Amino acid sequence: MLNLIIADASLETIPIDLYKHHSFKKIRHSGKKPDDILLDRSFHHFAMVATNLDNRHKRGRPDILHIALINALATPLYQNNLIRVFIHTINDNVIFVGSTVRIPKSYLRFEGLMLNLLKNRKIISNEGQILLEMRDHTKFDYLLREIIKADIVVGLSTTGIYRKLELIATDLLEFSNPCMVVGGFPKGYFSDGVDSSFNKKYSISNVGLESQVVISRLIYEYEKNVLA
Amino acid sequence: MLNLIIADASLETIPIDLYKHHSFKKIRHSGKKPDDILLDRSFHHFAMVATNLDNRHKRGRPDILHIALINALATPLYQNNLIRVFIHTINDNVIFVGSTVRIPKSYLRFEGLMLNLLKNRKIISNEGQILLEMRDHTKFDYLLREIIKADIVVGLSTTGIYRKLELIATDLLEFSNPCMVVGGFPKGYFSDGVDSSFNKKYSISNVGLESQVVISRLIYEYEKNVLA
Repeated sequence: MLNLIIADASLETIPIDLYKHHSFKKIRHSGKKPDDILLDRSFHHFAMVATNLDNRHKRGRPDILHIALINALATPLYQNNLIRVFIHTINDNVIFVGSTVRIPKSYLRFEGLMLNLLKNRKIISNEGQILLEMRDHTKFDYLLREIIKADIVVGLSTTGIYRKLELIATDLLEFSNPCMVVGGFPKGYFSDGVDSSFNKKYSISNVGLESQVVISRLIYEYEKNVLA
Repeated sequence: MLNLIIADASLETIPIDLYKHHSFKKIRHSGKKPDDILLDRSFHHFAMVATNLDNRHKRGRPDILHIALINALATPLYQNNLIRVFIHTINDNVIFVGSTVRIPKSYLRFEGLMLNLLKNRKIISNEGQILLEMRDHTKFDYLLREIIKADIVVGLSTTGIYRKLELIATDLLEFSNPCMVVGGFPKGYFSDGVDSSFNKKYSISNVGLESQVVISRLIYEYEKNVLA
């Protein structure tokens, strides 16, 4: 079984300091609480800059996670239960993605689902199956060693050694529980806690590629080896 | 140069009959006009069913087009100007996608962009370049023969003959101006006008695949042949 971690993803509600900023006045008056709104650079860029939000170049991009998940979960590999998907956020939250999840393509529905997850820590189907589960304060290393128990960890990064993706995908067949790590952030590099955990770090292109492109290609190459 | 048409996509503002439906009362009172809102099944499903909207299983899915475009335009193939992208909608509108377009990942920004395009027929960059251009009343066949001037037209559909995608991508190298056609709709089949124009129709999987998965894989396989 292949494991995929979308790492350093940003998914959080409005930090309280940001909520106090004057650009949120209208929202405060509307009765919406910080927990009712995902941090989203499209809308909160000005406040993020004005309040000097820590690590802000990686934050406020739930749209990246949305599109990455849509791509990963629409693949035959996932639908045949041959890949497990995890999200690790820059705030050290881990989200476990169940094996039969359909992520809504509509962003507003996705936003509602994520707010529900952040509040209730679990999304359960009508049939009682856990679709999404969130666990706080889970370091990346703990996820790898104690939860996934990966026998190899391969990160994809522009700072890695160049290797053809089809070869990387074939290498994985030698392991029983390999884990691939793809960044879920807009630019910059993996955080130190993530980067230091890789057994191998590869670059698959001479240009930086967006998360959903890397995820789509990786799953496709791996799928060729394990699905007829 | 490869051409890609995302065909039978649904992108339209609210049809006037729908706007009259009582579920739009609040929107009418808000002063929003039909042209200010994209038809979106996530919000308008009930009204679409209640007013018996024609061909409605294919309509109201701008989210599908959004995600398909994000995947296509983030590829090195597009960024190296080796693929031209066209959208053909179920209402016989054609959208020409320029060669240096970045589609916003944020759905709300995409929606704003599309409403602007539907109103003004063109989106022009600050540097004066045409990013998106829409042309009404353009039949699929006219797009193929008179605009693209394709020397082969290959459709991907579950109703086609099975062929490995990497072989399909390699076949294209024999042509100087090949055109691939991928559906931009949620389910069902190509409309007759589209389906009848294919020189070849292939299926690439024994299960139906979502548009963005097909587009990602197709571009990736073709890219392997033309980019080192």
